[in-house]
Amino acid sequence: MTSVFCGVDIGGTKYSVALINEKGKILDEIYSREHTGRNEEGLVDIITRNIKKIIRRNGLQESDLPGIGIGFAGHIRYRDGVVITTSNLKGFRNYPLREKFQSRFNIPILLDNDANAQAWGEYKFGAGQGFDDMIFLTISTGIGAGIIINKAIYRGNTGTAGEFGHTIVEPESDLLCTCGNYGCLMAYASGLALPHLFEKKLKEGKKSKLTLLPDFNPSEITGQLLKKGLDMDDPVSIEIIDESGYYMGVGIYNIFQALNPPLIVLGGGLTNWGDPYLNKIRSTFYGLARDMLYDPVEITISKIIGNAGVIGAAALTIK
Amino acid sequence: MTSVFCGVDIGGTKYSVALINEKGKILDEIYSREHTGRNEEGLVDIITRNIKKIIRRNGLQESDLPGIGIGFAGHIRYRDGVVITTSNLKGFRNYPLREKFQSRFNIPILLDNDANAQAWGEYKFGAGQGFDDMIFLTISTGIGAGIIINKAIYRGNTGTAGEFGHTIVEPESDLLCTCGNYGCLMAYASGLALPHLFEKKLKEGKKSKLTLLPDFNPSEITGQLLKKGLDMDDPVSIEIIDESGYYMGVGIYNIFQALNPPLIVLGGGLTNWGDPYLNKIRSTFYGLARDMLYDPVEITISKIIGNAGVIGAAALTIK
Repeated sequence: MTSVFCGVDIGGTKYSVALINEKGKILDEIYSREHTGRNEEGLVDIITRNIKKIIRRNGLQESDLPGIGIGFAGHIRYRDGVVITTSNLKGFRNYPLREKFQSRFNIPILLDNDANAQAWGEYKFGAGQGFDDMIFLTISTGIGAGIIINKAIYRGNTGTAGEFGHTIVEPESDLLCTCGNYGCLMAYASGLALPHLFEKKLKEGKKSKLTLLPDFNPSEITGQLLKKGLDMDDPVSIEIIDESGYYMGVGIYNIFQALNPPLIVLGGGLTNWGDPYLNKIRSTFYGLARDMLYDPVEITISKIIGNAGVIGAAALTIK
Repeated sequence: MTSVFCGVDIGGTKYSVALINEKGKILDEIYSREHTGRNEEGLVDIITRNIKKIIRRNGLQESDLPGIGIGFAGHIRYRDGVVITTSNLKGFRNYPLREKFQSRFNIPILLDNDANAQAWGEYKFGAGQGFDDMIFLTISTGIGAGIIINKAIYRGNTGTAGEFGHTIVEPESDLLCTCGNYGCLMAYASGLALPHLFEKKLKEGKKSKLTLLPDFNPSEITGQLLKKGLDMDDPVSIEIIDESGYYMGVGIYNIFQALNPPLIVLGGGLTNWGDPYLNKIRSTFYGLARDMLYDPVEITISKIIGNAGVIGAAALTIK
């Protein structure tokens, strides 16, 4: 009998429950947005129901699984399975999420930050295969990361290691991050930064080819929209993508100096900008690392096919 | 019989060979500057002679020691024991230092970066006792660091992990670091930065109480001199120490977000600036970390008594 693993990925706008096989291929998935209107208990209830459903409808029993891995978009105190805080869902302040799920199942529940789960999935099934150490970065609305050291997730004391998005790259910056500090990497190189960067370009008198209503809301400026801009040679989009790539290159250089990993894997929506973005990241990184690069450092794109979040969550149950 | 451990600390201006006991206390030490005029082989010869001498004069034999630990101020490829480069001594480009020592002894030679060795000494005998994870930073001419993760030194792929001094905190800076990049932490918050910072203050029209000859050489501005300035309420010295503390606080905050350690231990000459410096580091760090600090992070001073470098080097031979 082949092995089956169960994962749950809980994000701000959707959640997903899936079974994967030992190669990281999704066998079945339930995908929904129905959790967002609910309180904490309600979320646990509805997701529990769907975990039990997906197990049942695949002719399995709980005991056929080594456990259930849950990736959650928030700060998790790993040792006690508590969600400390999240900016993605209402509530969840010091909420004992692992315990709440555990009381509903007879197999171990593993709860981790979603980026840690994705890093682990990437290490098990993706670009990280064969490496002992790697850094995974997911660049989308925010910047998340997972650190693999000696074939294990490194979580730090609380469980929040890898918050490279909140490292400060411009201390005297006027760019405010959601965390309340100025000049974080996330304030320069994440989806959240794009509206501000776009407005700044327009204020500088630059013209965008993107058709925007005169009263457009800056929050409409997403990575997807800038991808369109890129495809139509819009100079404003090109500049923002270039600058985002520059700051990610600096951020990755800082990770290199701090942790000296052989591999950095990038995932998340902004990587869809493709070569202009990745080339800028790489040229910035290699330009800074120069003669301090004594062994190869590979910067590559996630190789997970399908929902990386839920695959990573399921992978948490694999040693 | 009590255990005895042998360490060698090789720096740019001096080297030290010592025996320590299982509590990290130095039993005997040979301290010299005679290596600086020599080539690589000559350095290995003279230090070998002194290692054999200190073993002999303490009534020991090589086989009484588990090995010899060597801390070297430079970039080390740990897995093959090669000094890749050093800015502290002439030569030593891809020099197989471990092998050169190994051929002269019948017990294992362990070669590591000096900051890694100090971190290990601090973990074994100093402020790190009882912690599984910690970061050690030595702030003197440059900034070195050692990372302890899961009760072991984390070295990264090449062996150069922990180069926090070369993480970039001001990408658009005009402050050049010895590495060739601009805006590194080391360019703002190390001994190397002091002459430049001092000159800048004078150019801004600030008056220093320190008695300087009109044609003073900026390189005379050391941490020790600014300590004198601090003691005489010199406003320029106070400002520089305050700014250095600010940037170290930012650097430590970035380490916190990256690695989430429970403990950061500071060593090195600049910590002699004392409370005004340490308070600024702490207030900057805690001000930035605020509500993202879910578990205590302690920022403390090295507790090693005596030559921390050679004690750390000897500690490398202790599991």
